[in-house]
Amino acid sequence: MLTARLPILIGEAIDKIMSSVPKGDVEKVSLLEASGRYLAEDIFANHDVPSFDRSLYDGYALKAEDTLKATIESPIEFEVVGHIGAGSVFQEEVKNYEAVRIMTGAEMPKNCNTMVMLEQVKELKKEGNHFILIDQQISINERVFKKGTEIKEGTQLVKKGARITPGIVGLLATFGFSEVLVRVKPKVGVLATGSELLEVNEPLAPGKIRNSNSYMLMSQIEKVGATPIYLGKLEDDLEKSFKAIQDALRQVDILITTGGVSVGDFDYLPEIYSRLQAEVLFNKISMRPGSVTTVAKLQNQFLFGLSGNPSASFIGFELFVRPVLRILLGNDDPHLPSIQAILTEDFPIPNGFTQLIRMKVKVEGTKVFVTSNGLNMSSSITSIAGADALVVLPPSENGYAKGNVVDVLLLSDEGQNKSFFNR
Amino acid sequence: MLTARLPILIGEAIDKIMSSVPKGDVEKVSLLEASGRYLAEDIFANHDVPSFDRSLYDGYALKAEDTLKATIESPIEFEVVGHIGAGSVFQEEVKNYEAVRIMTGAEMPKNCNTMVMLEQVKELKKEGNHFILIDQQISINERVFKKGTEIKEGTQLVKKGARITPGIVGLLATFGFSEVLVRVKPKVGVLATGSELLEVNEPLAPGKIRNSNSYMLMSQIEKVGATPIYLGKLEDDLEKSFKAIQDALRQVDILITTGGVSVGDFDYLPEIYSRLQAEVLFNKISMRPGSVTTVAKLQNQFLFGLSGNPSASFIGFELFVRPVLRILLGNDDPHLPSIQAILTEDFPIPNGFTQLIRMKVKVEGTKVFVTSNGLNMSSSITSIAGADALVVLPPSENGYAKGNVVDVLLLSDEGQNKSFFNR
Repeated sequence: MLTARLPILIGEAIDKIMSSVPKGDVEKVSLLEASGRYLAEDIFANHDVPSFDRSLYDGYALKAEDTLKATIESPIEFEVVGHIGAGSVFQEEVKNYEAVRIMTGAEMPKNCNTMVMLEQVKELKKEGNHFILIDQQISINERVFKKGTEIKEGTQLVKKGARITPGIVGLLATFGFSEVLVRVKPKVGVLATGSELLEVNEPLAPGKIRNSNSYMLMSQIEKVGATPIYLGKLEDDLEKSFKAIQDALRQVDILITTGGVSVGDFDYLPEIYSRLQAEVLFNKISMRPGSVTTVAKLQNQFLFGLSGNPSASFIGFELFVRPVLRILLGNDDPHLPSIQAILTEDFPIPNGFTQLIRMKVKVEGTKVFVTSNGLNMSSSITSIAGADALVVLPPSENGYAKGNVVDVLLLSDEGQNKSFFNR
Repeated sequence: MLTARLPILIGEAIDKIMSSVPKGDVEKVSLLEASGRYLAEDIFANHDVPSFDRSLYDGYALKAEDTLKATIESPIEFEVVGHIGAGSVFQEEVKNYEAVRIMTGAEMPKNCNTMVMLEQVKELKKEGNHFILIDQQISINERVFKKGTEIKEGTQLVKKGARITPGIVGLLATFGFSEVLVRVKPKVGVLATGSELLEVNEPLAPGKIRNSNSYMLMSQIEKVGATPIYLGKLEDDLEKSFKAIQDALRQVDILITTGGVSVGDFDYLPEIYSRLQAEVLFNKISMRPGSVTTVAKLQNQFLFGLSGNPSASFIGFELFVRPVLRILLGNDDPHLPSIQAILTEDFPIPNGFTQLIRMKVKVEGTKVFVTSNGLNMSSSITSIAGADALVVLPPSENGYAKGNVVDVLLLSDEGQNKSFFNR
């Protein structure tokens, strides 16, 4: 059983996976349900913004040419011939020396080409009629937000693949997109292996531990925006496990298993991949934790065989499963955002594999640091719970020292802040 | 109608709001539904981790004292008397010079105090019995993960108020929390005012614009984790508007209106607050955009009167509504994360009010910069869609210059990355 496996580099592993991600299906969803998903279409402005000349203040619309000779000494009188609120349109013709009361945001009357603010005029009542006095020259288009000044019809507003943030929802609503095209959420099955595993609601028993990986993975899947499906755990029997995996593959787009990929007596997955005639893309990666991570493909379905160790399972998801899900969800920039940061402690131990250390990122002043996550660096489950970044330490004979600048992968799926993390 | 309003500082406005946020109700949810919510209880370890002495490798468990004299020249023979997989427990007594085959993660037999790896031994079969040869001294507890080494029973694992990330889900699952206490999601009503507003699915008409604020706000509410309720728009009639707001207040915990808070002829909200006998906390803030933002309280209910301008509505939500919702959701660190960054352009225009500029944050090397968001700095809806941060420019006679270090609020509700943004 002790077959030798050749480790490949993390980058190679990612390339092998990403080179064969299928195209996901699309669906229309209402704008109210679209938040947090990724656009599956480019969005163009279907009209100008503003779509009409709009008054920027409360006041009076009039013709600029009528104010040419207005001075404090000889103000010019305008008769107020109408009153328009926002949303109303003044249909009649405005004649010379006439003015129309206009509210912020309202459409300018067709014949008017400028406006004065309420506080710039003096109001008069004469024989039941309403007049204003203007004592200064007003330029054309003063305080008028001209049609198309903000956005011209035909402008590309949002690119396919963008995450639908509140700001983008506002933009889509402005242009009347009550529905938008997004990708169908992939269904991701989670199946644990290991006869030591108890369900979360079972009492602890000698030799047993609870199945924490499956719950953690379901939370990771949900955070990315796909649909997690809990499939329980495999029994310690090759035939039953084979059948369970065949059943699972009928229900899901992607199957994640945890454990069972090593070379121990009860590690059935290598044999199951072979029986399924799945193509094993790799079964050993030069990384710690998670060196036994295995990825296989059966037609368009990925089978991710993650290690049963919680840290390895968590990291394996973030490095290998997350980008596949994000591509299927329609995002074309699928990997964890990466920045550089300054180490605040030594990592003196040499390692022949790339290490991924769960740490915390901290901005101090305008500089970025990474610090280790509490007292329990080695403890797998507590270190994940407190981490917000994975520090990447490539193989090194001398280890790493405080002050070294290192690459950091941020454990964030916050698309809106993506640019924050661009290199 | 042109009543003078005294502007207060943004910080004062926030203090006035935050000093009277009520306590929200709590509920139990299943661990599968808990992702992204905030813990309403402290979580303590209810057992040690590991909960038993666990083998770290595949190999053989035995008594360390039996290996004292083992050397390459004179290896010592052990009879293999049992075989335990992970999850199984070896119940019999292991005698001197006996060994038990043990898998990674399995519980050590009671009488054994160390283990050797598969690759450290030589296996023998004699008369149908199974023996191993050990040619070196093995220390006590070698490759044994001792009970309680990672976490001691009683340790506080997660604090009340923490966002439930995948890592925390894993931790909760480990300790058997199949349900957790969280706060009930507040219901937030959104009601627009303005006769110029069309529904998103209505065709554009002269003088009209679509109601983009309500959709943007609902997306903002959802992103924070509360429940948005769309209540349509108020009619341009004081009596009907008053009744609509009374009805709304019966359905929701918090009511957001957009528009109608200024001093124009159709701005009914000041009158409605007065009729409701709501306490107006403030009706003018020294900020741009959004100086007319009004916040009122009626017993435990907040009424947020945001400006109808899209940028002002967006920013008003992030500064004033979001922290209230996060407190109600059980998070005790409710404000937008704040960092400092370096301006990459000049803002030469003096301003008597604090300006909030929609920008993009960029990390280059290990330094943080803010850049303006495309060509349309002034355009309200496009600038929001592209922004990931609000740059805070306090009142200044000389404006700001490229290279200045400024405060930046990050538009992220990603609790997991919070520490990233701590000052």
